[in-house]
Amino acid sequence: MTLDEAREVLCQCRREIDEIDQRLVAMLNERSRVVERIGAVKQSVSLPVYEPKREDEVYANIDAANHGPITKDAIRRIFERIIDEMRTLQRMRMEGR
Amino acid sequence: MTLDEAREVLCQCRREIDEIDQRLVAMLNERSRVVERIGAVKQSVSLPVYEPKREDEVYANIDAANHGPITKDAIRRIFERIIDEMRTLQRMRMEGR
Repeated sequence: MTLDEAREVLCQCRREIDEIDQRLVAMLNERSRVVERIGAVKQSVSLPVYEPKREDEVYANIDAANHGPITKDAIRRIFERIIDEMRTLQRMRMEGR
Repeated sequence: MTLDEAREVLCQCRREIDEIDQRLVAMLNERSRVVERIGAVKQSVSLPVYEPKREDEVYANIDAANHGPITKDAIRRIFERIIDEMRTLQRMRMEGR
């Protein structure tokens, strides 16, 4: 592969990454809206926000859906960050911020 | 809202979260495959793996795509984790692991 050919392929790959990232951002916000709805429902009937058993279910679902190349540990670390950020957002909303 | 009604809504919301997470996992793996392709192309023509200018473009694209409810800082932290995990994977592949 020549340097020019390589640059061409890289340019195409970057367009793909940008397009995937836009879809990821949209989907993460969609997830966040559902998390907010859960928070509002729980608050209205005074159910606890944090339910460790449900969290186990979330990770089991992610593990089952993951067929690589991302490893099990790596996908878990990514979702730990996602879940943590959404929990923070949910807490802010419930405190009326 | 009664407790039974709340449980019903929560159950529906959780099904939605599980379905979104499955799509997120698939899309993250799709992104990872493109990152691997980039790594292979760069290696074949000896281009540097890390390009800070391209990283700035990635974050600019994410910021522009984000219309909330996730905040700018939160989405950035999520993508920092995603990019970091994929960089690790790319390095492992290039070292032949």
